[in-house]
Amino acid sequence: MAKLCDEPVTQIHIRPGMTVNELVSAMGRAGAYNGGSLHRAVEIYEQMLRNTETTKFFGLAGAMVPAGMGGIVSDLIRDRHIDILVSTGANLTHDIIEAIGCRHFHGTAFCNDVELRHDEINRIYDVYLPNEAFVHFEEFMQDVYGKLEPKSTISISGLLRHIGSNLKSGILHTAAKNGIPVYCPAVQDSMVGLQYWLFSQTNAVTVSAFADMPALMDCCFTAKKAGAMLVGGGVPKNFILQSMLMTPNGFNYAVQLTGDRPDLGGLSGATLDEARSWGKITEEAQAVTVYGDATITLPVLVAAVMERMHHD
Amino acid sequence: MAKLCDEPVTQIHIRPGMTVNELVSAMGRAGAYNGGSLHRAVEIYEQMLRNTETTKFFGLAGAMVPAGMGGIVSDLIRDRHIDILVSTGANLTHDIIEAIGCRHFHGTAFCNDVELRHDEINRIYDVYLPNEAFVHFEEFMQDVYGKLEPKSTISISGLLRHIGSNLKSGILHTAAKNGIPVYCPAVQDSMVGLQYWLFSQTNAVTVSAFADMPALMDCCFTAKKAGAMLVGGGVPKNFILQSMLMTPNGFNYAVQLTGDRPDLGGLSGATLDEARSWGKITEEAQAVTVYGDATITLPVLVAAVMERMHHD
Amino acid sequence: MAKLCDEPVTQIHIRPGMTVNELVSAMGRAGAYNGGSLHRAVEIYEQMLRNTETTKFFGLAGAMVPAGMGGIVSDLIRDRHIDILVSTGANLTHDIIEAIGCRHFHGTAFCNDVELRHDEINRIYDVYLPNEAFVHFEEFMQDVYGKLEPKSTISISGLLRHIGSNLKSGILHTAAKNGIPVYCPAVQDSMVGLQYWLFSQTNAVTVSAFADMPALMDCCFTAKKAGAMLVGGGVPKNFILQSMLMTPNGFNYAVQLTGDRPDLGGLSGATLDEARSWGKITEEAQAVTVYGDATITLPVLVAAVMERMHHD
Amino acid sequence: MAKLCDEPVTQIHIRPGMTVNELVSAMGRAGAYNGGSLHRAVEIYEQMLRNTETTKFFGLAGAMVPAGMGGIVSDLIRDRHIDILVSTGANLTHDIIEAIGCRHFHGTAFCNDVELRHDEINRIYDVYLPNEAFVHFEEFMQDVYGKLEPKSTISISGLLRHIGSNLKSGILHTAAKNGIPVYCPAVQDSMVGLQYWLFSQTNAVTVSAFADMPALMDCCFTAKKAGAMLVGGGVPKNFILQSMLMTPNGFNYAVQLTGDRPDLGGLSGATLDEARSWGKITEEAQAVTVYGDATITLPVLVAAVMERMHHD
Repeated sequence: MAKLCDEPVTQIHIRPGMTVNELVSAMGRAGAYNGGSLHRAVEIYEQMLRNTETTKFFGLAGAMVPAGMGGIVSDLIRDRHIDILVSTGANLTHDIIEAIGCRHFHGTAFCNDVELRHDEINRIYDVYLPNEAFVHFEEFMQDVYGKLEPKSTISISGLLRHIGSNLKSGILHTAAKNGIPVYCPAVQDSMVGLQYWLFSQTNAVTVSAFADMPALMDCCFTAKKAGAMLVGGGVPKNFILQSMLMTPNGFNYAVQLTGDRPDLGGLSGATLDEARSWGKITEEAQAVTVYGDATITLPVLVAAVMERMHHD
Repeated sequence: MAKLCDEPVTQIHIRPGMTVNELVSAMGRAGAYNGGSLHRAVEIYEQMLRNTETTKFFGLAGAMVPAGMGGIVSDLIRDRHIDILVSTGANLTHDIIEAIGCRHFHGTAFCNDVELRHDEINRIYDVYLPNEAFVHFEEFMQDVYGKLEPKSTISISGLLRHIGSNLKSGILHTAAKNGIPVYCPAVQDSMVGLQYWLFSQTNAVTVSAFADMPALMDCCFTAKKAGAMLVGGGVPKNFILQSMLMTPNGFNYAVQLTGDRPDLGGLSGATLDEARSWGKITEEAQAVTVYGDATITLPVLVAAVMERMHHD
Repeated sequence: MAKLCDEPVTQIHIRPGMTVNELVSAMGRAGAYNGGSLHRAVEIYEQMLRNTETTKFFGLAGAMVPAGMGGIVSDLIRDRHIDILVSTGANLTHDIIEAIGCRHFHGTAFCNDVELRHDEINRIYDVYLPNEAFVHFEEFMQDVYGKLEPKSTISISGLLRHIGSNLKSGILHTAAKNGIPVYCPAVQDSMVGLQYWLFSQTNAVTVSAFADMPALMDCCFTAKKAGAMLVGGGVPKNFILQSMLMTPNGFNYAVQLTGDRPDLGGLSGATLDEARSWGKITEEAQAVTVYGDATITLPVLVAAVMERMHHD
Repeated sequence: MAKLCDEPVTQIHIRPGMTVNELVSAMGRAGAYNGGSLHRAVEIYEQMLRNTETTKFFGLAGAMVPAGMGGIVSDLIRDRHIDILVSTGANLTHDIIEAIGCRHFHGTAFCNDVELRHDEINRIYDVYLPNEAFVHFEEFMQDVYGKLEPKSTISISGLLRHIGSNLKSGILHTAAKNGIPVYCPAVQDSMVGLQYWLFSQTNAVTVSAFADMPALMDCCFTAKKAGAMLVGGGVPKNFILQSMLMTPNGFNYAVQLTGDRPDLGGLSGATLDEARSWGKITEEAQAVTVYGDATITLPVLVAAVMERMHHD
């Protein structure tokens, strides 16, 4: 018992003007439930970023860009804290929309959606996006797709790099500029994909579904250490974790921010311990799941880690 | 007020030996929370299946096949209740595993995953899958992929039909036999995809990411009515709903079974009302979301609807 | 591994006209996630009800009576399947409202609550209750409280039995008629309590907060076996489980239907395994938690168990 | 549309060393999902605390003291930011345990609860509490109860004030010292209550369940403005909100931090809009719900508000 009970819970006392890392450290001394897990996530993510041998994967699922989380991701790319980004197509669509100068707006989830339809506003929970943005988006996308070499075969990450190199801000731009690959296995499942379908009606470029696999797998085979920062579940989480399955390696660090729950059996809510049984993460991997909305946990996590890294 | 309060809640009284539809009808007379929504889902799904003008989409996300829900899906295909299936790659992987004679097993979520790893067992919440199954799976997949025409370009649904035509049971088999297309936009994100990567190391077949889009879009443009039965969210839900975005049409019926929650902003937990603002479902569409574990809600829903359809 | 993997998942095949227990048995052969847990709950609850040595506790939290679940509870009392009922005050308030002839109504959660306020309708998610019901409720309660013996001291269960003996249907009526105690530790926290406060403005009856404890504790000390059926968490769950803490006994059977989640640390979502560490349930207790909405899981569970019991 | 879309989402950019309020302000400019709600909660709670006409209620449910959140609550009492505290009995039990010098410990939720039982450790998710603490607790409680005036009748808040005045730190101590009433309608439903039962075996003090109601109701009738800060749901939330039902008043400010969900119908997860239909909060009340774990949202909320209040 002595061994099991050696680190006491310390009650939190707030001081006006605390920095984010000071507060997270207090949450770590309290140490319980998801507050404790968030502190542990800060510890692991800090180690993962500091370990220069680590290949750093970042999974981005959920409608994070419409919620203003895209700025955090593009800054992490700029600062070389992401080596490989795996995203849903939706986040990239909204990233492009912001990069071409359109905006998302503060709205409300308690509204009449038929009226919104009449007002030509698309809703993402409490975020509003005017239809007009998709007019500009279509114009931009068709223009960019039109610059693709006719009759060529291209990978999905190649397509996204092409798009990013035609933008001046945002995730795709920063990734293209810094040579960071962006994988998006289900690119068809997004407006980026629908625009490509439109383009392909009259143009012959082949996007190869598997062309990205060799480079990714090489990266997994050669990684000395690997770390995964997972925002949400979905394809990005699964694609990142499964990438180690064919190799003798596994992830050494893993942090998951999710609002899902494990008991439904889906991978999005699955614990990272479950991933140990598959060998996706190593037996000794440092891993933690923080349950909650990533619009809260991601900014707090990154702010605390950046504060710690800055003190060197 | 009279108008708002005209249908009273009827307390449920259980009778031994009730059929599933009898119980669901009692839940409908009670009419509250997700029990009431489940009854409404039965009403809508029955109408959707009875309306012969409806093109019936089915979205399959979450680890449903390892949980024994695959039998329900293949029976629905056999009975022509599904015209277009959109699935995650994981469900198809586990469908193939069962179809080649391997099994999933009852396990527990409260276990030591490192010990499971040593025992060569992969865990999906409380389902166990021995590694051995993946040995047989690899053998089968490499053999089947080896029969693909060299240097050809193939669509994802074509690849899946090819696999299904080499099986004797399960979802892919039944779909192939009945000519039902199976779409899987993120096929790379699964063991089906990893095996393809392995195959592609020494073989040159191109899987075109977008080759399935024209047929799907044609189908959406020409559908008189459209209905969507969505198990889980993820890529299948989004891919089905977005398919109407480029057309003047929208879904007329929609039923969603999900364990996610709307306030996190992700599409998986989004209400179907939100889809009205986008025009993915029509303004007048009959639509309902049942929150809960689909291993409960799907069998109850399908059993009640099949009982109703059988009475004709 | 052989030992860990001996019971295979059986895919579910629906047959039109299946009884509820037939479907639940198929869900048991599938055996995964909450569908598997629901089958296990049926097995445990059947054993608990069949074991004649068992003292059967029932915890009722969440707004279950407005959702039509009260009929199930009063039938279980009538059939002697409940020995001790612990309820929130809200469920008893709504039970009284129905018993005096007022009704709850089917409504919608997507509405304007300020307009409802103007229409004198109170909302419980998608259930509507006209203010008028509370007028009749007040009349009834003041009348019934007026029959209490002046200057007496009464227990909470005594107060509730007094109310129940003045009703002709519902939970409190059936409990009073059958001599089943109803405990409601937080009775003040309900309209039953607010009406009592009103009554106490001009009358002197003392309701002793602790007067119910001796009888309950005696019951816990003398129980040969104990079983707990817990709908929701809250005070009823905690009060039932803690009742064993002062005795050398613990619950031998426990079934919990809850929509909460364990990682938030609250007792409502806590696993029943956690209760083993406290000794609230025995080390060998058969126990299962089914996560989901009790407006689905409770009717299915009780229908399946009643069907099984009826076959004898 | 112009009107609906006037406040754009601003992407978040992290700066090392940001204070908590600086980060929350950035989350407010992003403005989406629960991150946006948390910012709104800070705005409302700040106004509620600054408005000197406001009677400030605080509801404390969930196992918050074992998680280190008790320090925040006692500091809020000390700083006169709480006028009326409503708590579960469990939180007060754990507050007393800490105040008499016993400690809770960092543990893990992934453990063997039967082994913990043998090690005499009680588990609250990932917090461990040695049985030994309850030995000291019993000693203290029996001693304190022994000082009650024999044959008297006492209110629950009176009982708790008596306990608090025998302690030197923590919530009950600070409340007693500052004359802040602590209401705990379900006090029987806790170790505080079980110890009272033990005491009452040989002593005759009557705890009147309703004796606290007149003072509370007076307070509700005379309040110029009222505000409710609700951590978790349960009895504290319902008891606070219902207290206005018998008055012409309603809450003018309301902030709710909860991990529950609305669609299950229970009050714990109910939206504050639902409370408008009942008149518990006013039609114009400023109110927001932040979904998530209060071990994260409560420290962030209070730190941001204290930082803002300190700048004056």
